[in-house]
Amino acid sequence: MIKLPGLIDPHVHLREPGQTHKEDWDSGTAAALAGGVTMLLAMPNTKPPIFDAGTLDLALTAARSKARCDYAQYLGAGPDNTEWGNQADLPQKAAGLKMYLDSTFGQLRLDDMTLWQQHFMQWPKELPLVAHSESRSMAAVILMAAIYDRPVHIAHISLKEEILLIKAAKERGIKVTCEVCPQHLFLTRDDIPAISQGHPGRGEVRPRLATREDVEALWGNLDVIDCFATDHAPHTLAEKDGENPPPGFPGLETLLPLLLTAVEDGPLAFAQGRRLTMDDIIQKSVTNPRRIFSLPEQPETWVEVDENANYELHADEMKSRCGWTPFEGWKVRGRVRRVMLRGKIAVEDGKILVQPGYGQNVRGK
Amino acid sequence: MIKLPGLIDPHVHLREPGQTHKEDWDSGTAAALAGGVTMLLAMPNTKPPIFDAGTLDLALTAARSKARCDYAQYLGAGPDNTEWGNQADLPQKAAGLKMYLDSTFGQLRLDDMTLWQQHFMQWPKELPLVAHSESRSMAAVILMAAIYDRPVHIAHISLKEEILLIKAAKERGIKVTCEVCPQHLFLTRDDIPAISQGHPGRGEVRPRLATREDVEALWGNLDVIDCFATDHAPHTLAEKDGENPPPGFPGLETLLPLLLTAVEDGPLAFAQGRRLTMDDIIQKSVTNPRRIFSLPEQPETWVEVDENANYELHADEMKSRCGWTPFEGWKVRGRVRRVMLRGKIAVEDGKILVQPGYGQNVRGK
Repeated sequence: MIKLPGLIDPHVHLREPGQTHKEDWDSGTAAALAGGVTMLLAMPNTKPPIFDAGTLDLALTAARSKARCDYAQYLGAGPDNTEWGNQADLPQKAAGLKMYLDSTFGQLRLDDMTLWQQHFMQWPKELPLVAHSESRSMAAVILMAAIYDRPVHIAHISLKEEILLIKAAKERGIKVTCEVCPQHLFLTRDDIPAISQGHPGRGEVRPRLATREDVEALWGNLDVIDCFATDHAPHTLAEKDGENPPPGFPGLETLLPLLLTAVEDGPLAFAQGRRLTMDDIIQKSVTNPRRIFSLPEQPETWVEVDENANYELHADEMKSRCGWTPFEGWKVRGRVRRVMLRGKIAVEDGKILVQPGYGQNVRGK
Repeated sequence: MIKLPGLIDPHVHLREPGQTHKEDWDSGTAAALAGGVTMLLAMPNTKPPIFDAGTLDLALTAARSKARCDYAQYLGAGPDNTEWGNQADLPQKAAGLKMYLDSTFGQLRLDDMTLWQQHFMQWPKELPLVAHSESRSMAAVILMAAIYDRPVHIAHISLKEEILLIKAAKERGIKVTCEVCPQHLFLTRDDIPAISQGHPGRGEVRPRLATREDVEALWGNLDVIDCFATDHAPHTLAEKDGENPPPGFPGLETLLPLLLTAVEDGPLAFAQGRRLTMDDIIQKSVTNPRRIFSLPEQPETWVEVDENANYELHADEMKSRCGWTPFEGWKVRGRVRRVMLRGKIAVEDGKILVQPGYGQNVRGK
């Protein structure tokens, strides 16, 4: 049996308010605990999006009564909420500011870089700023971190050109950190047919699954990756298989077994990088996110893993409401047996033992 | 009569080798002199493109026998010529390195930022590096200038978000300079119908004509603009009016009258910026390009302008082979009467008096 600290997932979509048929604060935080994640940061592109005091309250009210693990809620950067300096302590109540700059639709997408500049100037320097920014947009965001001399965290990098540019920027002393999702470490675009099973929507995720060369570059630069994050983005199978399938994969319940299996198996067959270690998992899923996002320690909190359990991943054994996984049938090694959260047994042998409302807002006073 | 130094245009397409029906080193340099431009830097996206010793020799051989004004020829950054360190003194023989990162087709377009990094690392730091990079790509290029601590010059900026980001980068000490073309100072997308005259291809130019707000931002930040450049991009009217019209405007013979008229008239009616001055013209068309591109002074070289001449711009009075201008019929004030180039009368009352081959390669030893 291995004992790990409770994992932190800085990138989770819980779909509440607005789309609770996909997931809500209850089912999503249950899925988190089942996966060994004891703290998560919830994204703001809900319906309505979370971008001011009123909408933040909407999300936090749902969370207060329903969350089973600890959490904080992001605010979204929009065209009309750049005046953070006039918002009293609103920024301090959020996980951070999320900027949607690519591949996103709806009110939170910012196309005009002059708005990015405004958010960079006005969002408090000591609070987290996270960007969904791919390729050249990512480079543009890192430039703003350099110009305004403040930290920025790049969500879900997936490309060779991204990891190599972040590496160079870090070497130059620019305050950039980044996260990588399991789908971009363990899948390439060549896996889309197997995931799709004839339903192309199942293979849709943003950032898209990349090339083998991109995946190799991530494994070849493990030390540049600050965090693992799931970008848990649940949609129902009916939606994924329907017209206009929404992009996104669930991920909370597959993150840890995939990482543990990689520790056991060594790097992917085609990748040249060094072997993933247990220390990597702790660093990139606990220590680094705690530091980057200024998150509190969780006392008496840990995850017990049976490292010798060999089994297959199956969506019908998962807590997420979405009912599917792109890793269906994958053979993995290492199963969560028990999760302790602040002195209580939160999970034991697949059963969630803490009630909705047990989770705490880590940005609450 | 006003006496100006000979202008330098750092961004000119002469179409030779390969497309001399549009322009060549003779007609293009005649157009330059007629416009008061005594030195120009020629772009490398010819047919074939100029990207190595052999192709540079091709362009310079044509230039040597045909150019009437002074010049240098750019090399283009491609996917296979990043190893500048192994190229002996080839980089020193060129005007600089031109990177095509947007809105360009053919062999010189670089989509992969890892290739940009290679060029940034390998092109000698003391030699000019120019990027066609719009919007977020521009920001990405400026990031590379910051990371590799070397100067970069941004070609033809046209957007508010571009000039504001360059302003912020300069304030932070990043080594970025930029140029603006007359079409982006004097035209907006609202002018496209008048330019097109029913032929939509005539309004096509890259970067595209922008919004009034963008043009206002350029006039409102004149001090951020380092250079004026024409991006003289001649195509015949038959091509512009045909299928798949190539983007591009000629500009060598309209630059100076447009600028002189703006000095006289003050800022555009809708722009809030300060008035353009003669000092601006000298700074942005002579002093700054000379410094940025390390160009030699031209002794006994000047342009005499009749500042009281009021007239209309007409393509049929121009030297460019392309036979049209987007400024057809514009009423301007200020006409080039005489150009002296290295002690010889090069232009007098519309007649070109220096022969092909009089022009010198300013990077020649």
